[in-house]
Amino acid sequence: MKPRVSVVGAGDASPKELALAESLGAALGRAGAIVVTGGLGGVMEAASRGCLEAGGSTVGVLPGTDPGAANPWVEIPLATGLGETRNALVVRIGEAVVAVGGEWGTLSEIALAKKIGREVGLLGDPPCDLQLPRMSTGEEAADWALRVARTSVRGGF
Amino acid sequence: MKPRVSVVGAGDASPKELALAESLGAALGRAGAIVVTGGLGGVMEAASRGCLEAGGSTVGVLPGTDPGAANPWVEIPLATGLGETRNALVVRIGEAVVAVGGEWGTLSEIALAKKIGREVGLLGDPPCDLQLPRMSTGEEAADWALRVARTSVRGGF
Amino acid sequence: MKPRVSVVGAGDASPKELALAESLGAALGRAGAIVVTGGLGGVMEAASRGCLEAGGSTVGVLPGTDPGAANPWVEIPLATGLGETRNALVVRIGEAVVAVGGEWGTLSEIALAKKIGREVGLLGDPPCDLQLPRMSTGEEAADWALRVARTSVRGGF
Amino acid sequence: MKPRVSVVGAGDASPKELALAESLGAALGRAGAIVVTGGLGGVMEAASRGCLEAGGSTVGVLPGTDPGAANPWVEIPLATGLGETRNALVVRIGEAVVAVGGEWGTLSEIALAKKIGREVGLLGDPPCDLQLPRMSTGEEAADWALRVARTSVRGGF
Repeated sequence: MKPRVSVVGAGDASPKELALAESLGAALGRAGAIVVTGGLGGVMEAASRGCLEAGGSTVGVLPGTDPGAANPWVEIPLATGLGETRNALVVRIGEAVVAVGGEWGTLSEIALAKKIGREVGLLGDPPCDLQLPRMSTGEEAADWALRVARTSVRGGF
Repeated sequence: MKPRVSVVGAGDASPKELALAESLGAALGRAGAIVVTGGLGGVMEAASRGCLEAGGSTVGVLPGTDPGAANPWVEIPLATGLGETRNALVVRIGEAVVAVGGEWGTLSEIALAKKIGREVGLLGDPPCDLQLPRMSTGEEAADWALRVARTSVRGGF
Repeated sequence: MKPRVSVVGAGDASPKELALAESLGAALGRAGAIVVTGGLGGVMEAASRGCLEAGGSTVGVLPGTDPGAANPWVEIPLATGLGETRNALVVRIGEAVVAVGGEWGTLSEIALAKKIGREVGLLGDPPCDLQLPRMSTGEEAADWALRVARTSVRGGF
Repeated sequence: MKPRVSVVGAGDASPKELALAESLGAALGRAGAIVVTGGLGGVMEAASRGCLEAGGSTVGVLPGTDPGAANPWVEIPLATGLGETRNALVVRIGEAVVAVGGEWGTLSEIALAKKIGREVGLLGDPPCDLQLPRMSTGEEAADWALRVARTSVRGGF
């Protein structure tokens, strides 16, 4: 089964964050991983584009009911209709989570992920001061996430 | 984007229902569709196996938190941790829904699908007397579902 | 702890169904029960009005994010933002479920309730032919529901 | 309609946090408010006890399917079966949110609340450094929350 990595981050991101997200997605895609995001723009779109163009798969867990709201790099749109409640699903589906920058929405995903036992790595400037592993490049974060996914207890949490 | 068809039905199904589900999955897989199920056994497993072996893709929307609970033909396990509340997501993700036999769980998926505007086709003996399109073979149901998916308003419901 | 009874039924109901729902709510309210509904109009509003005016309590589990969408007889609006996915919560919160008439939405609630182990009683014409207890008056249905709630395993399902 | 205030905080809390939560609950109860919590122990239990004993109402939005898991001061247990996904509902139901101390779960609730437009006030030591209003007593936090609830756009967010 392909490793699944959730990538979370703001829809409104800086050029540096977008570049980090795209290189992260590309490194995950080269490894044949599935990148799981919230399916919208910004970091979600950059990571999905990087992954899909590099040969990986992409899942978008959308807040609304319209699969057409997914960015064009989402292969499998999940239009949940759950609103922000879907944030819990974004991080539950992955075996590891990487956060790229982000604000309140991203912070909720980081915190939910930690609460349910997912490892979370940080790229860029996190939404607040958190005691979590920090990476400086997309490649480094991808290596970390794939290592976590590989050693995760596949039997759930 | 690949068409997405939700296949719902009981985990405890008859040999005839399992054969219908597998032929339905196979016809959808040959067409390059994504089959979305609840990820467990019985009809869910038969449809997933048929689809994956025929070259399609499979998503399993699991009730529990353990992705390892998915049947072996699920490519992308979504371990939601939502319990039976996940039934709404199973039918929301597809563009058309086919129900194969089934009991209370399947009936809830049929009814939720209709409530949110999804077309539902029936194979085998439905859980109660419903005024919905009936098909007699997996191939016929696959043709119907792909036609519905192709003409669905992609912009959501 | 007060008994909790979920009352489900269509937003667009007949005068006979509305009268049944109101008398059901009133009988539950006289017994000091909490009536749980989907919080909107029709059967949901009639049952809530009957219950609140008779001295009971009312909870409305709304699909949208606006608590102001609740009918005026809902004491505690739960604006879930979950859309129709909230149907699972409506029936999970009660210890017994009474369905008054209804269409697809109600059928989904009946089926979800049975799937998770709730007893369901029927008033008026059910959405399809179901092998479930039938009552003919609101008082009779209230007696049945209170008896089920009293003997339910309080430790959950 | 009674004001609704969500109180979030750790199940495993310090004596100081428990005292803050109880005085917050009591001040809200004296004002006739509904206190909404996650329904379990620690801060959730202390706030519920304070509120109920002071004459207010209490709702507990539980992660599991067993209403019997609610602390004894919860009047209306909502056993959602949604796991940690229920955190989004805890903060959505209130018109204002007060966080008392807390760790990852509480941080997820603070962040989700801000993401959907709820005001959040902090009592005790927050899970990380956040730019949010800080209060020093339960009474002060209750006054703040009731003022926010009173001026909230009742029409949802």
